[in-house]
Amino acid sequence: MAACCGKVIDSLLEYNTSKIVHIKSKKVGLINRLIQLAIIGYIIGYVIIYKKGYQEVEKPYSSVTTKLKGTSFTNLTGNESFPLYGGPFVWDQADYVIPPEENDAFFVATNMVITPDQRQGTCPESPDIANVKCTRDENCTRMEETSYGHGFQTGKCVPSDQEKGIKVCEVFAWCPVELDITPMPQFPSLKNFTVLIKNTVQFPSFGVSKRNIAPDADTSTLKSCQYDKDTSPLCPIFRLETITKEAGQDFNKLAYKGGVIGIIITWNCDFDSLLYSCKPVYSFRRLDNANAPIAKGYNFRHANYYVKNDTLHRTLFKAYGIRFVVTVTGQGGKFNVVPLFLNLGSGLALLSIATVLCDVVVLYVLRRKEFYREKKYQYVVENSSDEVSNRNQHDTISKKPS
Amino acid sequence: MAACCGKVIDSLLEYNTSKIVHIKSKKVGLINRLIQLAIIGYIIGYVIIYKKGYQEVEKPYSSVTTKLKGTSFTNLTGNESFPLYGGPFVWDQADYVIPPEENDAFFVATNMVITPDQRQGTCPESPDIANVKCTRDENCTRMEETSYGHGFQTGKCVPSDQEKGIKVCEVFAWCPVELDITPMPQFPSLKNFTVLIKNTVQFPSFGVSKRNIAPDADTSTLKSCQYDKDTSPLCPIFRLETITKEAGQDFNKLAYKGGVIGIIITWNCDFDSLLYSCKPVYSFRRLDNANAPIAKGYNFRHANYYVKNDTLHRTLFKAYGIRFVVTVTGQGGKFNVVPLFLNLGSGLALLSIATVLCDVVVLYVLRRKEFYREKKYQYVVENSSDEVSNRNQHDTISKKPS
Amino acid sequence: MAACCGKVIDSLLEYNTSKIVHIKSKKVGLINRLIQLAIIGYIIGYVIIYKKGYQEVEKPYSSVTTKLKGTSFTNLTGNESFPLYGGPFVWDQADYVIPPEENDAFFVATNMVITPDQRQGTCPESPDIANVKCTRDENCTRMEETSYGHGFQTGKCVPSDQEKGIKVCEVFAWCPVELDITPMPQFPSLKNFTVLIKNTVQFPSFGVSKRNIAPDADTSTLKSCQYDKDTSPLCPIFRLETITKEAGQDFNKLAYKGGVIGIIITWNCDFDSLLYSCKPVYSFRRLDNANAPIAKGYNFRHANYYVKNDTLHRTLFKAYGIRFVVTVTGQGGKFNVVPLFLNLGSGLALLSIATVLCDVVVLYVLRRKEFYREKKYQYVVENSSDEVSNRNQHDTISKKPS
Repeated sequence: MAACCGKVIDSLLEYNTSKIVHIKSKKVGLINRLIQLAIIGYIIGYVIIYKKGYQEVEKPYSSVTTKLKGTSFTNLTGNESFPLYGGPFVWDQADYVIPPEENDAFFVATNMVITPDQRQGTCPESPDIANVKCTRDENCTRMEETSYGHGFQTGKCVPSDQEKGIKVCEVFAWCPVELDITPMPQFPSLKNFTVLIKNTVQFPSFGVSKRNIAPDADTSTLKSCQYDKDTSPLCPIFRLETITKEAGQDFNKLAYKGGVIGIIITWNCDFDSLLYSCKPVYSFRRLDNANAPIAKGYNFRHANYYVKNDTLHRTLFKAYGIRFVVTVTGQGGKFNVVPLFLNLGSGLALLSIATVLCDVVVLYVLRRKEFYREKKYQYVVENSSDEVSNRNQHDTISKKPS
Repeated sequence: MAACCGKVIDSLLEYNTSKIVHIKSKKVGLINRLIQLAIIGYIIGYVIIYKKGYQEVEKPYSSVTTKLKGTSFTNLTGNESFPLYGGPFVWDQADYVIPPEENDAFFVATNMVITPDQRQGTCPESPDIANVKCTRDENCTRMEETSYGHGFQTGKCVPSDQEKGIKVCEVFAWCPVELDITPMPQFPSLKNFTVLIKNTVQFPSFGVSKRNIAPDADTSTLKSCQYDKDTSPLCPIFRLETITKEAGQDFNKLAYKGGVIGIIITWNCDFDSLLYSCKPVYSFRRLDNANAPIAKGYNFRHANYYVKNDTLHRTLFKAYGIRFVVTVTGQGGKFNVVPLFLNLGSGLALLSIATVLCDVVVLYVLRRKEFYREKKYQYVVENSSDEVSNRNQHDTISKKPS
Repeated sequence: MAACCGKVIDSLLEYNTSKIVHIKSKKVGLINRLIQLAIIGYIIGYVIIYKKGYQEVEKPYSSVTTKLKGTSFTNLTGNESFPLYGGPFVWDQADYVIPPEENDAFFVATNMVITPDQRQGTCPESPDIANVKCTRDENCTRMEETSYGHGFQTGKCVPSDQEKGIKVCEVFAWCPVELDITPMPQFPSLKNFTVLIKNTVQFPSFGVSKRNIAPDADTSTLKSCQYDKDTSPLCPIFRLETITKEAGQDFNKLAYKGGVIGIIITWNCDFDSLLYSCKPVYSFRRLDNANAPIAKGYNFRHANYYVKNDTLHRTLFKAYGIRFVVTVTGQGGKFNVVPLFLNLGSGLALLSIATVLCDVVVLYVLRRKEFYREKKYQYVVENSSDEVSNRNQHDTISKKPS
C-alpha cells in the first residue's frame, strides 16, 4: 500500500521535456534567428504596440441630441394658391424640423409642395395618376380606389382642374388633390443653418463617459465656433452646407429633391494614462443613391389640421428635405493582462514556425541533409526482431533498415 | 573580448530542433494519418472554405427610409359624435402614418378611437376609472388626481354621461373625456397599402456601399413590382398583408388591437471577385406578445389642436396600429491574409493532437508499448550517482531504476 | 514501379513523435505539477466554468415600446399672455409626450415656454439677440437675417416691447417673438407619472424570444406594481422620479432645464436547461452633462398651427423636458461544442508553458544544470569531420566541443 502510494507520488514528481537536437550551423542558425526576429518583431511591434494588443477594447453606448438654428424667408405674394403661406413668410426651426426631434437623426425641410385648405369632398383626380383619364361616366367604377392615387372614385367623369381639356374620374378625397410638381427650393438661407450635435458616449467596463463638448471648453469660443475639418475639428456646431460639402454633395442639388446624409462620429479612445486620448472625429457621407432608378431623393407628406366653418381642413405638405442620420462608432481600449497574455501566447506558438521552416532547410535542402536527418530522427521499426530492439539499446539511434 | 564576442555570435548562430522518434508501424501510422486527414479536412474544408476563414468580416452600418402608399375610406354618417370625421372620409398617408417619419421604424394606424371637440373644463370622469364612482360630493376629494384617469377632481359628484344611472366624481380635464371602447377596424383597404423600404448598408473597411434597390434595376419593373418571398424576393415594395402573413399573423386580428412587427433585412455579402454576392434577404416576425397579460397590442394617443370661438380645442386620437421596426443585420467578407494565417496557424497547432492521440495508442495500448516507451523516453534520475550519469553518457537512454 | 509505390505507402504509414527526456526530480517535478495545476485550474475553473467557455454567445435584437400615464394640472389665471392655455388646465399624455412615439426613446415635457397666437408679420426683435439694439433706422439692414435670431430685418428701428426704453431692429417673423425666459416647472405631479416599457429581445441563433413582461405573470399584480430596485426589480412600470433617483439626479432640478436619462436594460441569459436564467436588469444613468458649458439641459421648439380670421396662427412651444433613451444590451449563451474545444485546445497549448518554465529551472538554475543540459540537448556540429559524425553514432549524444 505504502509502496503503491510512493509510486504514485513518484510519478507525480516527474517532469517531461522534449529532447532537443542542438545544431551548430551558421547557415541554418542565421535563417532561424532571422525568422525568429521577424516573428518577434511582428508580435511585439505590430500586434502588441501598433495594434495595442495589450488592451481590452469595448464599443461605446451612445446618445445623440441635436438642435437646429436659423430662419428662412419666402415671398409667395401674388400666388393665389397660397392663402395661408403667401406674402412675406419667415420659417424657423419649429416649421422646418419635422418631427421636432428624432432618435439619432434629424430632418430639415428644404422644399415643400403645399396644398392648402384641403377638405373632405369630391373633386377631379390628378391626371398624373394611372388609368383615371376618361371620356364618360362608364369609365369610372364607383368606390374603386385609384391606384397610387388620392381616393375612391365616385363614378363620374369630370373635367380636370389641373390640366385643361382633359376629363378624369371624380374621387372622394381630401380636395382639391395635390398638384405634385416639385418647385425650386424656396429656402435660400437654409445652407447657413447650423446644427449643434450633443453626443455622449459611455464605456461601462471602464466606467468612462465622454462628451463631444469638452467640459473645460471655453464657453464663448464654443458659442461662436463652427466646425471645420482643418481649423476647428472639435467644434460641435455644423453649418449644413459644410456637412453636405464634406459628403461631396452640392447643397442646392441635394435640397431640390432631398436626400439622406450620414454623420459618422468616430471615437477611438485610449484610456491608458500615458497615451490618454479620447476625441471624436466627424465624417460625412451621402447614404441614399443620387441616381436611384425610382423614388429618388427624400420626401414625405404630413399635414396640419384646422377647423374652419365647423369643417375639418388641412394643409398638406409634401416636404422635400435632407435627413441627417447620426451614427456613432469607434472603441475604447485600456491595459488588461488577459489580452496581453493571449497575444504573447499566440506569439510563442508562432515561434515554432521558425523551427518548422529550418527543419525543412536542414532536412531537405542542405547538402548534408542525410547527416542531419540521422541526428534528428531516431528510427524505430515495429516489426523489428528483439535483436534490433536490443541493438537499439546500444546504438541508441536505430538506423533505417538498409 | 574578441573570444567572448565570438562565443555570443556562435550561440546566436545555433539552432534547436526537437529530436523525433520516427516509428515505422503500419497500425499507428494509419491512425496518425487518419487523424491528420480529419484535422486538415476540418481546417481546410470547414474553417477555410465553408466558413470562409480566409476573409476579414465587418458588420454594416445602415440607414433606412420608408414611404407608404394607399388610401382608405370610412363612412361614419349618422354618428353624432363625429362632427369632423363623419360622412364619407378618405384617409391618406398624411393621416395614418404618425409621426410622418421615424428612424428605422414606421407606424400605420389601423383603428382609432376619436374623441372630437375636447376643451378644458369640468365633466364627469369615465366610470371605467378606479374609485371614481360616488354617491355624494364627500366621496370626491377636491384637486385629487384620479388614478390612471383623465384629470383632477372638482369635489362634486355628478351623473355619468357614459353610463346611465351611475354617479361619478366630476373632474377638471379635457372634456368630454374619452370613451375608451375599441371599435372594429374602420380601414378595410389597409391590408393593400404598400411600403417602399429604401435601405443603404455601408462597409467602411472595404469602401463598399450597397442599396436594396439595385442601381441597374429596370425602372418600370421596380415601379410595379411587389415583394414575394418566392417570385420577387428583391422587390423593395411590400404589401402590408404580405408582411403580416410572412410573420405568421392574421392581418385583421393584428389590426384590431395593434402590434409590433419586425422587418429584418439580412445582408450576407462576399466581396471577393470570384464569389461576389451581396443581396438583401427579408424576413418578418411579430415582436410583441399576442397573448400578453397586460397592455396587449399597440396603441398611443395623440391630438390635433385647433381654436374655435377663441378657445383651444383638440381632437384626441387613440391610435391602434401596427408598428414596423426595421432591423438591418448581416456581414460582409473580403480576402485578407491575417485571418487566413490565423486559421492556418491554429490548424497547425491542432495537428499536434494527432501526435498526442497516437502517443496514447503507442505507449498505453499496443502490445509492444514497453518497447516504444523505452524508445520515446530517455529516463534521467536526479539523485543518481555520477556513475549512473556516466553510464547514461554511454548508454544514452537511461533506464528506469529497476 | 511497385517498389516505388510501396515506398510511398511505407512513408505514409510512419509516425513521428517527439523524443522526451523524462526527468525524475522532486524539485522540478513539483514546480512542473504546480504550474500545470494552475493552468488547468485557470482553464477549467475560470475559462470553462466561470466564464462559461462552453457556450456559444449571441447579442440580442431588441424592440422597445413605451406608454406613459399621468395627468398634470396648471393654473395660469390672470396671465394675459396665455389666452389659450390660461385658467385651470389639465395636461395629459397626448399633450406632453412629443412626438407621440419614438424608436427606443420617449420625451416628457417638464416645462414650457409658450408663445401663443403668433402670426407672420413685423415686430421688434428680442433684445437678447446679438447686434439688434439700434438708435436709428440706419443701424438695421433691410433683409439681413438676425444672427441666431427670429427673422429678417425690415430696416426700421423700433422700441422693444420686451424691455422698456430700448430700441431694437424690427423684423419680419412669427410675431410677437418668443420671450425666452425659463419659468419654474409648472407640472408638479409629473414625478408621479408612470411609464410602461415593453421590451422584446430575440436571439435568432437559439430561436429564443424573451419579453420583459413574463407571460405567466399575474395580471392584477402587473397592473398595480411599480418598479423598485430591491422589492420589485422585474416590474415593467416605472415612476419617473424612481428613474431619476436611480440615476442619481434630483427630479426637480432635472425638470427645470431638461436632460437626457439613459435606461439600460441588460439581458444576461443562460439557455442551458440546468442553469436556465433569462431576466432583465434595469439600470439608469444621466447621459447629458449637468454642468455643460453651453446648451445645458434639453429642450426643443415645436408649434401647433391653427387658422383664425383666415390667417395662419401658431402657438410656439419651447418644450423643456427629460428625454429617456432606452438601450438594450447583454448576451445569451448556450452549450456548443466548438467554443468548448477551442478553449480546451488553447488550454493544452498553455500547458507547454509549464515545460518552458521548468526547462529554465532545470537548465539554468539547478546545481546540476550541466548534467541536465547534456541530457536534454544532443549537440550536432555542422563542420565536424565525418569522424565526429561517426563518433556521434556511437556516443549518441554529441558533446560540446570543449
